Amino acid sequence: MTLFINPDRLQADFDALSAIGAFEDAEGNRGVNRPALSPAHLQARAWFLARAAQAGLETRIDAAGNHSAILRAGTGVQPNAPTPLPTHSHASRPTPTSAVPPTLAPPHTPTLLLGSHLDSVPDGGRFDGALGVLAALEALRTVKDAGLSLPVDLEAIDFTDEEGTLVGELGSGALAGSLALEALQKPRGGRQRLEEGLARAGLDEQRLGQARRDPASLAGYLELHIEQGPRLARSAIAIGVVSGIVGITSYQMMFRGAANHAGTTPMDERRDAGIGAATFAITARELVLRDYDGCAVNIGQMHFEPGAYNIIPGLAELALEFRAPDAKRLGELEDALLTLAGMVARQYGLGLDLEPKGGCAPAPMSERAQAAIAAAADSLALTHMRLHSGAGHDAQALAPVTPAGMIFIPSREGISHSPREFSDWQACVDGGNVLLRAALKMAERD
Amino acid sequence: MTLFINPDRLQADFDALSAIGAFEDAEGNRGVNRPALSPAHLQARAWFLARAAQAGLETRIDAAGNHSAILRAGTGVQPNAPTPLPTHSHASRPTPTSAVPPTLAPPHTPTLLLGSHLDSVPDGGRFDGALGVLAALEALRTVKDAGLSLPVDLEAIDFTDEEGTLVGELGSGALAGSLALEALQKPRGGRQRLEEGLARAGLDEQRLGQARRDPASLAGYLELHIEQGPRLARSAIAIGVVSGIVGITSYQMMFRGAANHAGTTPMDERRDAGIGAATFAITARELVLRDYDGCAVNIGQMHFEPGAYNIIPGLAELALEFRAPDAKRLGELEDALLTLAGMVARQYGLGLDLEPKGGCAPAPMSERAQAAIAAAADSLALTHMRLHSGAGHDAQALAPVTPAGMIFIPSREGISHSPREFSDWQACVDGGNVLLRAALKMAERD
Repeated sequence: MTLFINPDRLQADFDALSAIGAFEDAEGNRGVNRPALSPAHLQARAWFLARAAQAGLETRIDAAGNHSAILRAGTGVQPNAPTPLPTHSHASRPTPTSAVPPTLAPPHTPTLLLGSHLDSVPDGGRFDGALGVLAALEALRTVKDAGLSLPVDLEAIDFTDEEGTLVGELGSGALAGSLALEALQKPRGGRQRLEEGLARAGLDEQRLGQARRDPASLAGYLELHIEQGPRLARSAIAIGVVSGIVGITSYQMMFRGAANHAGTTPMDERRDAGIGAATFAITARELVLRDYDGCAVNIGQMHFEPGAYNIIPGLAELALEFRAPDAKRLGELEDALLTLAGMVARQYGLGLDLEPKGGCAPAPMSERAQAAIAAAADSLALTHMRLHSGAGHDAQALAPVTPAGMIFIPSREGISHSPREFSDWQACVDGGNVLLRAALKMAERD
Repeated sequence: MTLFINPDRLQADFDALSAIGAFEDAEGNRGVNRPALSPAHLQARAWFLARAAQAGLETRIDAAGNHSAILRAGTGVQPNAPTPLPTHSHASRPTPTSAVPPTLAPPHTPTLLLGSHLDSVPDGGRFDGALGVLAALEALRTVKDAGLSLPVDLEAIDFTDEEGTLVGELGSGALAGSLALEALQKPRGGRQRLEEGLARAGLDEQRLGQARRDPASLAGYLELHIEQGPRLARSAIAIGVVSGIVGITSYQMMFRGAANHAGTTPMDERRDAGIGAATFAITARELVLRDYDGCAVNIGQMHFEPGAYNIIPGLAELALEFRAPDAKRLGELEDALLTLAGMVARQYGLGLDLEPKGGCAPAPMSERAQAAIAAAADSLALTHMRLHSGAGHDAQALAPVTPAGMIFIPSREGISHSPREFSDWQACVDGGNVLLRAALKMAERD
């Protein structure tokens, strides 16, 4: 049986979801503002579970707030009564319903996860994350409608805070068992926002870790996502088969010089921390362009102290982040950049302090998942290419514990995290069909 | 008659004044914290007038808050009763007492001003400004004690806000008639601080301009100051004869690129505003070092938007200030730096916006004043050299309206605006004697 998703049903869902947290920029581009655990984000998640329940799918919220629709193994036929939606209030915490009723499938039936995330960056686009969750739901409905019998549970999952408004990949990290306590203690958005968000979602920080799943219970993970880069669009290729997700390392770097009078201190005797920071920024970029093809470096912020027109900067802080597609190159790039910073500091007589600001390890995608995605694209006569992801994704958290794969579709001009983010609707439908067929391929257990 | 100041009396004054607004840093260096019109600054000014009155000198506060001690022309003998000190309260504004009693001297007798300022930068040093005011007072007392008859009034003046906590060179600018209304409307420290400071000092913003003096009423201006740079100390030369004060121009410079994802945007396709700003900072420094000897450039602050580790900066603001000793070179340097910024913007595909942030014109010192200072140093067997001032001073405001001169003494390690600011006491006394003798030379009217 050759299955296709229902493009009209997917479109109706996409339009309904895009209205939650919607805004328009000055040029009329429509985006969504759904930071993790904001009221708009929680509304989107509730809408998702309601749509799943309408389709007769089992629903579930785990201890990390991940929202799921489940199609049990063995049959497309679901229990008659959909699971009641959990209520979201501070008083009643959601109860994980992970205990699989033994009448539906044996407890050792593994789960093939399909998903992404419904949260957005502030003032973000409509496609990033949302498309992957909606396509996963649509894949489950298609399998269910076809009455297809699969040897795995299919689960469409919406992970909590992929974007890191509070703690990046909170939900997928919790599920994979890799959520770091440190990340919770020093969340990017500050403790107060994290606490408020968790309270709003009815989540208990102490119980987040209970969302962890036994890797033996997982059959794999597939994620459809927009590329967020220009490579597919530029190559006019329909499908990206992601070979791996880059590793990211970040540091706060501080050059320490001597604040002094900008008029009376001779130019060649200054210990100007700002000049050190600027030199590092330029030479780090040149280093990566020359020696680290496929890698990236970014200086996202600089700040000088004391910061006056007429005072030579005595301190210059910079926000450094760099990425490489595999662990070996990430390590080499880190060594090269830190060596360079030391050389720049010596050149200008400056001190240098480094504070690691975390990151994530490179995550190669499963060969089996890549083959399933390529075969699915071939079956649909869609062109495809292997490429690595320069952005982080929930698949990164899943890859260490289960065979994970990602499907990219073209992003117009490579733009994302913006209301100008856009992908052709046909590309979205193609991506949904590749997800469905790759999932069926992955479901064929060895 | 060969006059010398009284070093013990000067030392007693210096110690008393240094106790007003005193603080100590972690290493035990003593400084003062007397921002303009702060309570500590007003206390220092009141102390200065009291000391002048004790010496039998006439005292005066003008409409811009400048505090003066006056020794009338013709005789060292003063009226028996010192002028009562003005009270400082919001209710009773100080009354300028500029009308010269005709019994003492004819109204057309010009005034030779000697002075500097008693305000400091926040957490500044004990010498900057204070030494020049105390040495001026000591010079007047020495002339008075000697019963010397001069053809000019001698006035030791403490100018308001030289450091620009509120409005740079407020007092000297008002006296010279160059205080800009714009500077009052957009003070560096904000309107509220200016209004609060003026209220605290009992000054009326509308009347500040009334402090202006007719240039015909002035015989010149001499200022003793620490160098705030390392040249005299390094050359082991006792006295600097200032040839001119640098001109200063400042801009807020904004490079505009495209904020984008730091992982998915290829390195060679970025329009990274931060890289533009860093490149400008490096190349501006190299330009000045190579082609603009005696000039200086400073990038005192940088700020990137949106300012996240994982977003390529779409906007980079930088605080640019540059200095040159004469108007021709200041203009050439301005042209060169703005041309350079345009080249950097084109190189990286960036937009460039410039917002002038003011500055001041270069101020050559009077040849007659320089000759008087050099002759005074020679008479004391003190080595001297000509040098320009890289820092702004009240003499800058005075130079366009009256023959102005500045005397520098060595600063240890060139440090200023810090509790580590220090000059040997003997150097201070030498400077005081040069001021006294140069004043006597300047008082010999043609």
